[in-house]
Amino acid sequence: MNWNPVYLSTVLEPDYVFARTHLLPHFLAALMAHRLGLLRVGTPQAAEAVRAMQALRNFRPPPYDDSLEDLFFTLDRELSAYSPVGAGILRTALSRNDLDMTVYRLSARAHLMAALADLAGLRRGVLALAERERATLMVAYSHHQPAQPSTLGHYLCAAESMLARDTARLQDALRRLNYSPLGAVAMTGSSHPLDRNYTAGLLGFDGPVENTFDAVSAGDWQTELAGAVGTCAVNLSRVLYDLLTWASQGLMTLRDGLVQGSSVMPQKRNPVALEHARARFSKVLGYAQATMLSIHNVPYGDINDPGTDVQEPLHLLWQDFSQGLRLLTASLENPVIARDRWRELTEHSGTTLTELADTLARQTGDFRQAHAAAQALLRTLHAEGRSLQQASDADVRALGTAVPDGTVQEALNADTFVARRTTLGGPAPAPMEVQFAQAEARLRADLERQSGWQARFGACYTHLLSSALP
Amino acid sequence: MNWNPVYLSTVLEPDYVFARTHLLPHFLAALMAHRLGLLRVGTPQAAEAVRAMQALRNFRPPPYDDSLEDLFFTLDRELSAYSPVGAGILRTALSRNDLDMTVYRLSARAHLMAALADLAGLRRGVLALAERERATLMVAYSHHQPAQPSTLGHYLCAAESMLARDTARLQDALRRLNYSPLGAVAMTGSSHPLDRNYTAGLLGFDGPVENTFDAVSAGDWQTELAGAVGTCAVNLSRVLYDLLTWASQGLMTLRDGLVQGSSVMPQKRNPVALEHARARFSKVLGYAQATMLSIHNVPYGDINDPGTDVQEPLHLLWQDFSQGLRLLTASLENPVIARDRWRELTEHSGTTLTELADTLARQTGDFRQAHAAAQALLRTLHAEGRSLQQASDADVRALGTAVPDGTVQEALNADTFVARRTTLGGPAPAPMEVQFAQAEARLRADLERQSGWQARFGACYTHLLSSALP
Amino acid sequence: MNWNPVYLSTVLEPDYVFARTHLLPHFLAALMAHRLGLLRVGTPQAAEAVRAMQALRNFRPPPYDDSLEDLFFTLDRELSAYSPVGAGILRTALSRNDLDMTVYRLSARAHLMAALADLAGLRRGVLALAERERATLMVAYSHHQPAQPSTLGHYLCAAESMLARDTARLQDALRRLNYSPLGAVAMTGSSHPLDRNYTAGLLGFDGPVENTFDAVSAGDWQTELAGAVGTCAVNLSRVLYDLLTWASQGLMTLRDGLVQGSSVMPQKRNPVALEHARARFSKVLGYAQATMLSIHNVPYGDINDPGTDVQEPLHLLWQDFSQGLRLLTASLENPVIARDRWRELTEHSGTTLTELADTLARQTGDFRQAHAAAQALLRTLHAEGRSLQQASDADVRALGTAVPDGTVQEALNADTFVARRTTLGGPAPAPMEVQFAQAEARLRADLERQSGWQARFGACYTHLLSSALP
Amino acid sequence: MNWNPVYLSTVLEPDYVFARTHLLPHFLAALMAHRLGLLRVGTPQAAEAVRAMQALRNFRPPPYDDSLEDLFFTLDRELSAYSPVGAGILRTALSRNDLDMTVYRLSARAHLMAALADLAGLRRGVLALAERERATLMVAYSHHQPAQPSTLGHYLCAAESMLARDTARLQDALRRLNYSPLGAVAMTGSSHPLDRNYTAGLLGFDGPVENTFDAVSAGDWQTELAGAVGTCAVNLSRVLYDLLTWASQGLMTLRDGLVQGSSVMPQKRNPVALEHARARFSKVLGYAQATMLSIHNVPYGDINDPGTDVQEPLHLLWQDFSQGLRLLTASLENPVIARDRWRELTEHSGTTLTELADTLARQTGDFRQAHAAAQALLRTLHAEGRSLQQASDADVRALGTAVPDGTVQEALNADTFVARRTTLGGPAPAPMEVQFAQAEARLRADLERQSGWQARFGACYTHLLSSALP
Repeated sequence: MNWNPVYLSTVLEPDYVFARTHLLPHFLAALMAHRLGLLRVGTPQAAEAVRAMQALRNFRPPPYDDSLEDLFFTLDRELSAYSPVGAGILRTALSRNDLDMTVYRLSARAHLMAALADLAGLRRGVLALAERERATLMVAYSHHQPAQPSTLGHYLCAAESMLARDTARLQDALRRLNYSPLGAVAMTGSSHPLDRNYTAGLLGFDGPVENTFDAVSAGDWQTELAGAVGTCAVNLSRVLYDLLTWASQGLMTLRDGLVQGSSVMPQKRNPVALEHARARFSKVLGYAQATMLSIHNVPYGDINDPGTDVQEPLHLLWQDFSQGLRLLTASLENPVIARDRWRELTEHSGTTLTELADTLARQTGDFRQAHAAAQALLRTLHAEGRSLQQASDADVRALGTAVPDGTVQEALNADTFVARRTTLGGPAPAPMEVQFAQAEARLRADLERQSGWQARFGACYTHLLSSALP
Repeated sequence: MNWNPVYLSTVLEPDYVFARTHLLPHFLAALMAHRLGLLRVGTPQAAEAVRAMQALRNFRPPPYDDSLEDLFFTLDRELSAYSPVGAGILRTALSRNDLDMTVYRLSARAHLMAALADLAGLRRGVLALAERERATLMVAYSHHQPAQPSTLGHYLCAAESMLARDTARLQDALRRLNYSPLGAVAMTGSSHPLDRNYTAGLLGFDGPVENTFDAVSAGDWQTELAGAVGTCAVNLSRVLYDLLTWASQGLMTLRDGLVQGSSVMPQKRNPVALEHARARFSKVLGYAQATMLSIHNVPYGDINDPGTDVQEPLHLLWQDFSQGLRLLTASLENPVIARDRWRELTEHSGTTLTELADTLARQTGDFRQAHAAAQALLRTLHAEGRSLQQASDADVRALGTAVPDGTVQEALNADTFVARRTTLGGPAPAPMEVQFAQAEARLRADLERQSGWQARFGACYTHLLSSALP
Repeated sequence: MNWNPVYLSTVLEPDYVFARTHLLPHFLAALMAHRLGLLRVGTPQAAEAVRAMQALRNFRPPPYDDSLEDLFFTLDRELSAYSPVGAGILRTALSRNDLDMTVYRLSARAHLMAALADLAGLRRGVLALAERERATLMVAYSHHQPAQPSTLGHYLCAAESMLARDTARLQDALRRLNYSPLGAVAMTGSSHPLDRNYTAGLLGFDGPVENTFDAVSAGDWQTELAGAVGTCAVNLSRVLYDLLTWASQGLMTLRDGLVQGSSVMPQKRNPVALEHARARFSKVLGYAQATMLSIHNVPYGDINDPGTDVQEPLHLLWQDFSQGLRLLTASLENPVIARDRWRELTEHSGTTLTELADTLARQTGDFRQAHAAAQALLRTLHAEGRSLQQASDADVRALGTAVPDGTVQEALNADTFVARRTTLGGPAPAPMEVQFAQAEARLRADLERQSGWQARFGACYTHLLSSALP
Repeated sequence: MNWNPVYLSTVLEPDYVFARTHLLPHFLAALMAHRLGLLRVGTPQAAEAVRAMQALRNFRPPPYDDSLEDLFFTLDRELSAYSPVGAGILRTALSRNDLDMTVYRLSARAHLMAALADLAGLRRGVLALAERERATLMVAYSHHQPAQPSTLGHYLCAAESMLARDTARLQDALRRLNYSPLGAVAMTGSSHPLDRNYTAGLLGFDGPVENTFDAVSAGDWQTELAGAVGTCAVNLSRVLYDLLTWASQGLMTLRDGLVQGSSVMPQKRNPVALEHARARFSKVLGYAQATMLSIHNVPYGDINDPGTDVQEPLHLLWQDFSQGLRLLTASLENPVIARDRWRELTEHSGTTLTELADTLARQTGDFRQAHAAAQALLRTLHAEGRSLQQASDADVRALGTAVPDGTVQEALNADTFVARRTTLGGPAPAPMEVQFAQAEARLRADLERQSGWQARFGACYTHLLSSALP
């Protein structure tokens, strides 16, 4: 073929290089599964195909040259060198359509398993830090204003909850994508016998994608990935907002090796690992949109848009997602937390006032009134140039509310505030114990599930690429 | 409060109008659940709160005036009119933070249930048309070129497979969002006793969102919705591409009432229902991105971005999604399918050549060679100005391949092509029977699951708004 | 016509309501221009059309009922009531295609003029605050770390530079969209005589969109708006990041009327105006993407996607953009700036070290060496538990660098730092004067240009809707 | 520095490789300009810096190893090897902040110039084909239905109009980005003398970015590029929709070398060049969104998000944009247009009815009535099973409208239809001549402007990298 030089340089060469670099083992596995499938259904001369594929096992495709159309035909050419008939047999009831889609699903599955492992690593790190800092007082903010005392452990446990849901979303996506297009051939299956359940099982799929037209056409397993990974990116963009704020104020300091200096400002130690992680997640969201866009308003059928051409943004999505997860995990590995400064800021933040109102409400039953009383106290203090920490029982009594001795100072103490938040899921020690136990159990269960998958998928590849196969 | 006129006109008024129009029943249900929760844990004077809330049951909030901050304080004011103390009690261990997030989840749940119903309606319509057109020959395209004969039923079954997966994604999203923020109060719970499991159950939630900080801060249940709905929109944008192509070529004609004419071109009957559906789904994808963006790079904590402010794009997402689904369902309700024209196009498309190659490969075992022989035949016919339909056994034999009499004409027949595609999931009658049975069963199971939810959620609201309650 | 009830409720009714609410004056203006055009080219009986149109001038379209297809046919029906022939004449050489596209451009032009006015208002506010705070010391951050002393005036001037470029982008967009589709009729023009230049001029356009197919098909003027408004939204999202950080730390306090309290935390004064502004700009970016998506992968030709259906996201884009601009302008109108606290933070930030390095480099010529010396000094101070403010000439000399007396204290002074930054565009008073002068002049020029347009467009409408017209 | 291995592998190494591969000449040019600037303002020992930089001219940075932080420090190290003092001098009044931003602008400018050249190439190709096919009858569609006869030349001229506007948008973006950040140093300029106008001129910039904080912080020139390129991508996605439809129907056939066959369907000749172009433009839109997202809700100031980290999506944007433009240009270079088939489809499309209505309206003046008469005719023909082509004067007269002999057949002739569309911008030969002349002139002017820029920017680099420099 005399390819147009533009087509060659913009499509054929980059696609070949991509497939050779990233997809080869999946191509070999899928072809092996196909040949075993032919053998199983008794395709004449299937043994010839076996001989050829055995030889292909260790084949390294050459660098690109313009005699090559794509990786499939390069493998086909190599096979023919061993056995022209074997190569011919192997093409029976096989199309690039079902083969490519099978390869893309296998590749996505591998990336997804890696992402789940990275995510589990991050969750483990977040929980470890949460347990370490379970007693570290912090000001929880709402609407960018100091709101209530809490603990760093409570915040980090909350963050881990999001990541656990992200894990569930990604596991659901894996379950939904793990079906085999193989045997759909061009789009209508074949007039040759085929055992699609058998080849699906060989590749570790949970079964075939039933409808053969759908098998070569569907792109929704890719947009689902984009959506689920995008949601995780958005979640982490929020956590990074807070971490960067803390780093900015010296409340958290990253370890050496994760900060960079300045070529002009000698004092600088920039928390760049966090900043780069933020940018990674922004880009992940962009690549997720690129994935959506590639499959938007195109025919439902076998076309390049949800096939070959969407592999680039998906690849970038996995790459930036993994980089972001690992940068964040490294950053949280053992950061310096300026606990005294956190405590000092909390105690001076005037955020314990809710508990004073709660205390008053416990007496009267009426929180609305208690809230008004607390505001009146604040106005008085403000007018007198005093801080909330200086408020006393007398101040409250002066506003017409009788309180037992010691009520006010106790209610305004930040440690008390936290200790009294024993609501299910709150920051007091008792509910925190429950949360830690549940989070650990949840993570353990996820890791076990993922190990099971990993073992199963790995075994399939080992079996398919084994030299002992018929 | 003297609100800044800009703040009043850009935030307070539109937010009040939105809440009054779209969220009132959810506010009432959540407040009822809260007061029952106070009663259960023995909050003093909780009976007062009961009296007030009973009166609120039939309250219609007034049109906006600038004495109102928001719907919550309007309800609070109304409650106080009945019982100042009752209103005060009700505010105990309650914040707009957990209340709003509860309301937003309840509202999203209701929208999601409606969307699932619309989607089930579309699936039913697609399957009905697929069964009606199971024998309608069509050319399946790949890469925008005629590829192979298939049936319209096979295509539509494939499309329904996507929608079944979309349903599963939305059901998963429902399961993940159906947790209650109530009792998280501002973000750390309360020093008052609370039974979060109880109030969650009253509202039909599967339990509380455990961590209280997460409960008021999380936005991922909204971005998950955006991702899942967005994926369905992308899927349907592809089906619409094909439907519009068929409408464009007169292969499918919409019923009157779904087409519009032209003010200038007297002959026009435009399939605008399909066109508007396409635009709806494009916008859905945009509103999904707006949802993602609203929660991108903001603090993790209680802020307006993933709360009040993201309700607008989410509302538009549900609206355009529902409109698109219903327009498409209506369009497929009973369209005219020009079956003779579909058959004629198929028979003249030259797409049965694969089966000739398959037939030759069945003799030799070598598809590669058979593919080459079929191409050689095509070149010969082309050179002689003959069409594929005119090819005969003699032509194949002239190219050096021995075939039994009648082989070629039989292999090149479009009906034969389809009849021989008996692969699992293929278009031949037998695998189609299996597909229809499975699709019907799957749809039935989804409808039952959804009915169960609907009944349960409905019962909760009926109970909470019942006048017989304590 | 018996419309399908789904089509009626999802398309016809909302589109009619939208057109009646938002587009009526533009429809009337365009129709008036068309009838004057018919008159000019001598269309027979054009005077009849005149009589009818005069009557239509004060017509208020009725609320929707299902006998109406759209606003165009409602006007047509009303016209017929006055003069059947006049209505018929007016339809000569006119299509909803060119009419709608003309109306959408006129509507976008009006929104764009309003947005430019809002943006000018914000620029004026930013500059006023910049001039007020030109001497307010602040720490400029880079990579989320204190970097160098600067002034709030310098920062705000920088922000205004972005907004000036945003203005230029929007003005360019206006220039590019201000062409008339009228006379393109369905897409090929007409066999009746038409003077497209004349009708374009009547409507304040700079001329006709030349190619008639392009005139009814092009959507790029809408995506350009989306891109330009989106860029401005991104710019302002960054400024809001900083403003919210300052509000969070008490460095800037919004005026009453722009803050909201908490239903549970009595001390809260949340800078919600800024938060809502941020969310508005996030949504603007989402609606910009919805606009792009509506026109992505659809035919080039007259279709609803870039016409009727994209009006909703565009409308939301304008609405949220305007709200965001006005919320931000109101917030910056007279905020309390805690100057002493800004100064204190600057002086304790250790950010003057660059100037010490610069000073040393002035002696040796070698900044690289000077940078190393400054870092060595910092290490020494750190080891001795001293702050940068406590460094002296002796410390530098002890490290082997000879300096004249007083060098170090002078170099480390924050006021000195700023005073010495006299580079073009720097924060020292002299370059700031230049910047203010240029910014004021630039703003003035923009306002004049915009006033000119406003006057011209306004005059066109006044003329077209005048009762004195033939 | 002992870098954290995660930071090293996810940030330092890929950033170094990117800079070394794509940015080196811009780094050298910017450093040369800086040293000439130091010389000009009389920085002591600036001659030393000169000697070192001369040596650097032919430096090829080594492959990455972990002793390298980034390209800047690699150049710094190399400079020091020649002249430690020279290297030190060069760092005076220079920061990676202003240097990087200068380099990114220079790089974007180069990409933009290349994109403008590709776009001009496409416009030339579109115009050439338009002129070749100026007389080729086609059916223009609206709302996916045959609408009116036109010519392929008219359609292509319309498409070129969009591309001319895209060119203008990109040229505006170039004008707005072509300002120099150099001399802003970290963000406040320097206490050393600097001539920012001089260095800006050396690099071919139109001047300095005035405010120094803005100079190192602004990202809007990048989002403007994203918006403008995205708009062009959307425009071309529409043209590709139509081209693929034509290719699908055999109306247009790509040359060999741009089509691919099938591994299973022997008859396939897929117009994959067009399909890949469509996917390229979808991805461009996604990468544009990634660019927007990277700069969304981050601080305004020197950070990595709008700097180093957004270079990846921008690079992909340029790559896919260029690939898409070139694939489309190649596809349109000399395609086979099946003119007879286009004519046949047009003549059978029943789309000349508008002209019959126009003709009748010319008699009565009342288009509304004429439109109704044409519809009545159509109903009659339809009821009698006749096509529009078979309509005669008698049919019209039978409906009560008197017409001169021959009126109907003439009005219903497709060639007549086009010939009568002499409206400004219409498809008749006369207005087409005007359009071609204007399009050619516009393209010529753009090419001249672009050549002027290219010459000027090229001369700057030649001068800066010349060995004859002081």
